[in-house]
Amino acid sequence: MSLIVHKYGGTSMGSPERIRNVARRVAKWRQAGHQVVVIVSAMSGETNRLLALAKEVSPRPDPRELDVIATTGEQVSIGLLAMALKDIGVDAVSLTGWQVAVHTDNSYMKARIDTIDDFRIREELKRGRVVVVAGFQGVDPEGNITTLGRGGSDTSAVAIAAALHADECLIFTDVDGVYTTDPRIVPEAKRLNSISFEEMLELASAGSKVLQIRSVEFAGKFKVPCRVLSSLTDPDLPVEVEAVSGTLITYEDDPKMMEKALVSGIAASRSDAKVTLHNVPDMPGVASNILGPIAEANIEVDMIVQNVSVEGKTDFTFTVPRGDLENTLEVLNKKVIPVVGGGPVETNDHIAKISVVGIGMRSHSGVASRMFKALSEEGINIMMISTSEIKVSLVVDEKYTELAVRVLHHAFNLENGPSEV
Amino acid sequence: MSLIVHKYGGTSMGSPERIRNVARRVAKWRQAGHQVVVIVSAMSGETNRLLALAKEVSPRPDPRELDVIATTGEQVSIGLLAMALKDIGVDAVSLTGWQVAVHTDNSYMKARIDTIDDFRIREELKRGRVVVVAGFQGVDPEGNITTLGRGGSDTSAVAIAAALHADECLIFTDVDGVYTTDPRIVPEAKRLNSISFEEMLELASAGSKVLQIRSVEFAGKFKVPCRVLSSLTDPDLPVEVEAVSGTLITYEDDPKMMEKALVSGIAASRSDAKVTLHNVPDMPGVASNILGPIAEANIEVDMIVQNVSVEGKTDFTFTVPRGDLENTLEVLNKKVIPVVGGGPVETNDHIAKISVVGIGMRSHSGVASRMFKALSEEGINIMMISTSEIKVSLVVDEKYTELAVRVLHHAFNLENGPSEV
Repeated sequence: MSLIVHKYGGTSMGSPERIRNVARRVAKWRQAGHQVVVIVSAMSGETNRLLALAKEVSPRPDPRELDVIATTGEQVSIGLLAMALKDIGVDAVSLTGWQVAVHTDNSYMKARIDTIDDFRIREELKRGRVVVVAGFQGVDPEGNITTLGRGGSDTSAVAIAAALHADECLIFTDVDGVYTTDPRIVPEAKRLNSISFEEMLELASAGSKVLQIRSVEFAGKFKVPCRVLSSLTDPDLPVEVEAVSGTLITYEDDPKMMEKALVSGIAASRSDAKVTLHNVPDMPGVASNILGPIAEANIEVDMIVQNVSVEGKTDFTFTVPRGDLENTLEVLNKKVIPVVGGGPVETNDHIAKISVVGIGMRSHSGVASRMFKALSEEGINIMMISTSEIKVSLVVDEKYTELAVRVLHHAFNLENGPSEV
Repeated sequence: MSLIVHKYGGTSMGSPERIRNVARRVAKWRQAGHQVVVIVSAMSGETNRLLALAKEVSPRPDPRELDVIATTGEQVSIGLLAMALKDIGVDAVSLTGWQVAVHTDNSYMKARIDTIDDFRIREELKRGRVVVVAGFQGVDPEGNITTLGRGGSDTSAVAIAAALHADECLIFTDVDGVYTTDPRIVPEAKRLNSISFEEMLELASAGSKVLQIRSVEFAGKFKVPCRVLSSLTDPDLPVEVEAVSGTLITYEDDPKMMEKALVSGIAASRSDAKVTLHNVPDMPGVASNILGPIAEANIEVDMIVQNVSVEGKTDFTFTVPRGDLENTLEVLNKKVIPVVGGGPVETNDHIAKISVVGIGMRSHSGVASRMFKALSEEGINIMMISTSEIKVSLVVDEKYTELAVRVLHHAFNLENGPSEV
């Protein structure tokens, strides 16, 4: 008997019929002899409906009260799933975030989990019940209701799996796993049977939307075995088949990782803008003089490149979220240029970031050069390059996004699965 | 500075605009220097929407999970009202039933309040905040969410007012007070400036729908000064005017009650049916032999009349809710007649119960006879009579309901206000 955590998102819980399907799927796992804890999101559309209602009442809704309102979406979901389970003969009980309790800090709308009590969940499991837990929500030290921010239900699921030392955390979603790249761009993209946690983290931060990045961080911190799989298959698919479907996230000390792939996947993101401050004096402290005021304005800088200097002057380039571009310009003009000098400022919000991720590149050089060669053969100009241990990210003109992804996917033979060393 | 509890029902909270109006009304009381605790219901229609959703998922929804779902309606309301208050510069905080905490037993869907913690509410009041509390809900000793049953928000308000020893509990509703009778039947009906708790209790049980009967019982138990008043007036009406509007529920030791009214109001109810078991032997124990099995079947008997016996046989008549009539017949035929004998059984589900209520009739005879005279002059036949210390109830043919109410209203000169001794 294993302890298995399931997670179902808003689409999977989107209608009474789908909720009954989720119940059948959960029942199947319970009847196979497992203890099951299920984390669910609000029915699709519900969170947006609640936020819109709040905005109708208040133009700038108070964050604490917004959390009080938003958490009702998941509370309705847990009640509905628990009653659907009982209807088909599976003893079940629902628990809200505070009933568990999921303890968080008091940052409304983006709270971080501190600890999770496992007492109540374990008591209910001992009674033979399936425990249905509301995702996305917690309670702060004063007993106020908090939420973990958008996509927080993934984080709830992974954190609860960690607290319970669950044997596996199954994230049921509307795709059937993690792919070598977005199948809408490259139809030959292959589903990965497994991916290392670090690769998953890099893919999530590079724009892959399969898992929320905070949930991946959490999974890595506590080495939670997570599997991403489809909730759209036949709910009566045998457990033995479902148990090995989708994509398993593994950890370095996992023996399966001995056969390391060079490159596992390619992600593309079109949400950034590029900013270049020309002719800044190349002297110690200039980088922090530029990036300090930007960080203070709560703007997240992603890639940073500084060119070699010519006659004591250099060009400093970085990327920021597109929505923060105007704000960034204001900070540069008001707080940076008056201090460090330099100029003019050049911006481009028609860029794409293409990232190649693979734990194998850690020990193998040549990944970057293979990338540059493949792109240059197609005449795609590279605007920026940034490398980490297991990722190479490039910025290209936005119009080349799909082409660049296809070219790189082919260059690493990913249509045959992760390219091995 | 007084501590005032406000209660707003679903109609008052029915739209973003109405919620902003409630906020203005609450702000006015706060700005007049009072501490204010507000209890709210779910937005009108919301509880029904949630129950319908539950029924779509499960034909016979589990009561525990139904409470988990139903309580989200009030949770949304408290968040919306708290943010509307903050928007107009009034510091406010929302609290759910478990956050207060309102401790109840574990009878889902009809829980009874055991105790109410006043710590958190008092802390928030000390911080200068308006405290917005979700009505209708509580938490059982195991930490499960419970509800108090339909109309439970009135009970929440009165109970919280009692726990806080509030100076007054203002029940804002869609009528502007308690009337001598239903103004839709008698346009000349007069609003009462005050009514004794006992009269209010009798009126509530006699069919007046102004306040939920459990909330009146609670008010009486803890002598909570309650005022029923309108939420549909201009929210900016001066506090001094609003503070004396509507109808105040008073207690016997209240000096205002020295000027006792003979009769305060008349209520009518069309929800009962009459059952007569003819020819039962008139011997000790027969009443309990008839009513025992009916009580065991969870059928509530209201009026009971036993005629004088003729030749050792008597007729036994009682009223039950119309919806329980068939069930009652089954119990009589299967469990009563085989034991006590008697028969046939006669039923009538086209009856009305007319009740005249007045604390003054305690010390003054003649109320009943004045009633009979007035009705007989109009040719209205009286089928049953039942009297209590401060109420006389009559059963008449349903078709005479409005006529009987008008005749009695006039007989006691209630168009000039409560008829005095």
